[in-house]
Amino acid sequence: MIKYSNGQIFTKKPKKSQQLSRKSNSFSHGNRGMNLEGDINISNEYYKIKGLCLITKRPTPINVVKVDYSKGAIITNAYFEKQSTTDYNGVWKGRYIDFEAKSTLKTTSFPLANISTHQIEHLKHVLKHNGIAFFIIEFARLEKVFYLDAKYVIDFYENSERKSIPYGQFLIHGYEIKKGYTPRLDYLVILEEIYGNS
Amino acid sequence: MIKYSNGQIFTKKPKKSQQLSRKSNSFSHGNRGMNLEGDINISNEYYKIKGLCLITKRPTPINVVKVDYSKGAIITNAYFEKQSTTDYNGVWKGRYIDFEAKSTLKTTSFPLANISTHQIEHLKHVLKHNGIAFFIIEFARLEKVFYLDAKYVIDFYENSERKSIPYGQFLIHGYEIKKGYTPRLDYLVILEEIYGNS
Repeated sequence: MIKYSNGQIFTKKPKKSQQLSRKSNSFSHGNRGMNLEGDINISNEYYKIKGLCLITKRPTPINVVKVDYSKGAIITNAYFEKQSTTDYNGVWKGRYIDFEAKSTLKTTSFPLANISTHQIEHLKHVLKHNGIAFFIIEFARLEKVFYLDAKYVIDFYENSERKSIPYGQFLIHGYEIKKGYTPRLDYLVILEEIYGNS
Repeated sequence: MIKYSNGQIFTKKPKKSQQLSRKSNSFSHGNRGMNLEGDINISNEYYKIKGLCLITKRPTPINVVKVDYSKGAIITNAYFEKQSTTDYNGVWKGRYIDFEAKSTLKTTSFPLANISTHQIEHLKHVLKHNGIAFFIIEFARLEKVFYLDAKYVIDFYENSERKSIPYGQFLIHGYEIKKGYTPRLDYLVILEEIYGNS
């Protein structure tokens, strides 16, 4: 049972079907991302409906080269651009929230190659302006999801000689995000724990 | 001369060439939007470099139907989706900022048809969570740009029988955003004025 600061209470039910589908999926690149992204999107929708916070996903940036106006406006030539910021941002108690979600198939460490220099720069700016910045990182094969402060990731990215963050560091510096029924991935309880009284 | 709360000072030079091109443009739908959008984007870039705030533009949402992987990943069939949120959001002094920018060719009022119900709903959520929400509205032919609080717009949208906000209301309830050289549209001085001491 979780009690939010606004007094709302709800219980969490483990969803067996979801865990099974997670286990049985092929861990293709697309599925992997979509599972974590889908879980976060559903959680954000839950938070919005419950009036707990408002977090939105930035659309994938696409560079449009050609549009056919003969049948409405159909894009006939375009390509995906790399996200220069992060996937999610929003507001919680007036405060700015910004985070990136990543999933890895590795079981012993999280490769920093998953994070772009642009994203690190973006998160440094967020921190400079006192925003709350973090990563949600999934170890898909371990079925574990962690909250890891952006400060820690930036420091590791810039100062460590290692090219990946060992799993053990997540246990020390991260917070495990519990999977549940509603919300699917309750990262807001972690924000409450860290920033709730500030 | 503008003095920001962090002590930075800069002078504003009117840019004649910009004003001329503004006057001479054809006010086509595309140009119009791009002028205002371009001016805001350049101002945001300036704010970022100067370390004053971090505001980013959400990419236009595009629904991708077909991707050709034979030559990389070329999108061959897709269409534009309506933005269900607003164009811009970000962080200033830890606070969440969210706004929509609109331009009109009308000279006596701003038609509410320019704003979608989804955007009104989104901004209501932002205000509920104590975010700072507003509109930047350009009267292109009058060469005037205003800051108008989202609360006022939402109230007008929901309670007025009029389908457009009269220009006079902008003079009473809005703040004129001065055009300058850097930043092109200095809306941050208005945030300083309204929220600087809160």
